[in-house]
Amino acid sequence: MQDCSWHDEQFNMNKETDYSAIRLRDMGSFHIGGRTVQLRDQPEYERVMSAGGEPVRLNLNGSYAIEQMYVQYFLAERPNGKGPLVFWHGGGMTGAAWETTPDGREGWVNYFIRHGWDVYLCDAVERGRSGFAPWPQIWPDKPVIQTVDDIYSRFRIGKHAQGYDRDPAQRTAYLNSRFPLAAFDQFAKQMVPRWTHTNDAIVNAFKALLDRLGSASIVCHSQAGPLALQLAAGHPEQIRTLVAIEPAGIPDINTNEYRTPTLIVLGDNIDTDSRWQRLREKILTFSSVVPEAHVLSLPEVGLRGNSHVMMMDTNNRDIAQLVNGWLARRLASFTGQAS
Amino acid sequence: MQDCSWHDEQFNMNKETDYSAIRLRDMGSFHIGGRTVQLRDQPEYERVMSAGGEPVRLNLNGSYAIEQMYVQYFLAERPNGKGPLVFWHGGGMTGAAWETTPDGREGWVNYFIRHGWDVYLCDAVERGRSGFAPWPQIWPDKPVIQTVDDIYSRFRIGKHAQGYDRDPAQRTAYLNSRFPLAAFDQFAKQMVPRWTHTNDAIVNAFKALLDRLGSASIVCHSQAGPLALQLAAGHPEQIRTLVAIEPAGIPDINTNEYRTPTLIVLGDNIDTDSRWQRLREKILTFSSVVPEAHVLSLPEVGLRGNSHVMMMDTNNRDIAQLVNGWLARRLASFTGQAS
Repeated sequence: MQDCSWHDEQFNMNKETDYSAIRLRDMGSFHIGGRTVQLRDQPEYERVMSAGGEPVRLNLNGSYAIEQMYVQYFLAERPNGKGPLVFWHGGGMTGAAWETTPDGREGWVNYFIRHGWDVYLCDAVERGRSGFAPWPQIWPDKPVIQTVDDIYSRFRIGKHAQGYDRDPAQRTAYLNSRFPLAAFDQFAKQMVPRWTHTNDAIVNAFKALLDRLGSASIVCHSQAGPLALQLAAGHPEQIRTLVAIEPAGIPDINTNEYRTPTLIVLGDNIDTDSRWQRLREKILTFSSVVPEAHVLSLPEVGLRGNSHVMMMDTNNRDIAQLVNGWLARRLASFTGQAS
Repeated sequence: MQDCSWHDEQFNMNKETDYSAIRLRDMGSFHIGGRTVQLRDQPEYERVMSAGGEPVRLNLNGSYAIEQMYVQYFLAERPNGKGPLVFWHGGGMTGAAWETTPDGREGWVNYFIRHGWDVYLCDAVERGRSGFAPWPQIWPDKPVIQTVDDIYSRFRIGKHAQGYDRDPAQRTAYLNSRFPLAAFDQFAKQMVPRWTHTNDAIVNAFKALLDRLGSASIVCHSQAGPLALQLAAGHPEQIRTLVAIEPAGIPDINTNEYRTPTLIVLGDNIDTDSRWQRLREKILTFSSVVPEAHVLSLPEVGLRGNSHVMMMDTNNRDIAQLVNGWLARRLASFTGQAS
């Protein structure tokens, strides 16, 4: 349902400006999930390992550890008692998406640690520190790698001239954009290649993380949205609350049984983007039939110009504050405490 | 030179057992270095983006941001004043190598933060959160991906039976191994594919990081060893001190002009490994002609059974303590302060 409470109780917020020290009772990382596979009967091949060297004979045969997920954790020194908060990035990205902004401001990870969350920052299967498997021997195909030009329009920073001989001068940001435009090239540097057949492996690894944690809240983005909704539909007892930042789809799930308190956040300038218009329709339909699903359309509460990567936009702390407030209220009712 | 001081002044150490809270004045990440390249005149191709979907037409033409490096930073709340400490992982690894151990103990990052260092944890170009470039269109070839079996022997955890139809039961750890053997499979999960032609790009990105920091100390491992030595030889004013954990080579540099205080740490069971016997010879030759280069052979100071990934071994804190002590002493003389 459309959540109308934002105007009244939430949006007259005091701007939070805490940049005090970050204090952790522990931090570290681990890899979770995945499987071991064997390759046999592969031919040897030669490779020059460094410039000017002699070719070395290499052999692909043997065991591989694949489809595991890298998880970095930051546990607040004074935890807020609301349980783990898992960050799940979008397509072509890694956990770095939540750590910082392209212009060097603080990302959401710092914000949520300061608010007492135990933060788990993941690189989905096949991306970043999770590694990837040999192909075509194990995985069927090689990755898709996005151009900088595609990133500009796909993340709704603005429009670029059509055609594939595009130069940066032809990019035109939305007039109201809150993306830190001068740092766009820095944003492009954080994008990584992605595969297109690994959804099940990604979901399995997050399920393994939930099994380790017991239950958790999830903040996810874009590609991760439909995967996290699917996981919540199947395991409502393990996902306490779910925040989906512009989910890139709504999965085919039994909406009658969906019961995870869910907040879907939408940015601005969707009217200019036919793909996002269609996605918004699907999202509004989902929230209209699922009592526990709420949509927060940022322009409707007065936050204008937010891109598809609103966790990096110049008002990213304001949005973090809205999300944190929603999580706190929903988890208070979840645990039976007064909000 | 062989550093004989370890027996006398250093090794009668009190075991440090500080697991107190980790306090940071800031943490975050950025990508640094790299270049933008253009692809033109590439044919479109089709790809099914998710199971059961319609093929989507994709196009590689456009701009790419490549060869940048991901850097995560953890700045101690009470810095020790010794400047930045940059961690540079080995081949097939990422910054995760320094964060934790396969059996879930603390890695070196936590140790050095607790000792007041400003830690910069890097994923070298092409690995982890640094991403990689399209090939064969931009880079010449695809990556090399190590088998679990190769990892077992290459990191000197033990021997495995020869041949490529190997099963885990045929692995035999060194009797004195300090590697957390029961967690070997967990270690294998953190390995990632690597390319074999990217040394210059890797070094360029670390140089860009040094330019941003002004100067720094570096702790590097294996593949990074010869690259860091090369960087130190070319830019002694920017590398305050260098610790090379089992460098996988000695670069062709002018040893007469090498002046970065450098500690090379060697583990155990090198006598059983012909490649490491040859590398040890090169390292000892280097240290014999370079006054500022010191070798710490762990077995010679009574630490036995250390693998090629000693930062994860069961006595990893003892080794961290030796390294930290050496850094503190060398930086004290570097800055003219009493040690």
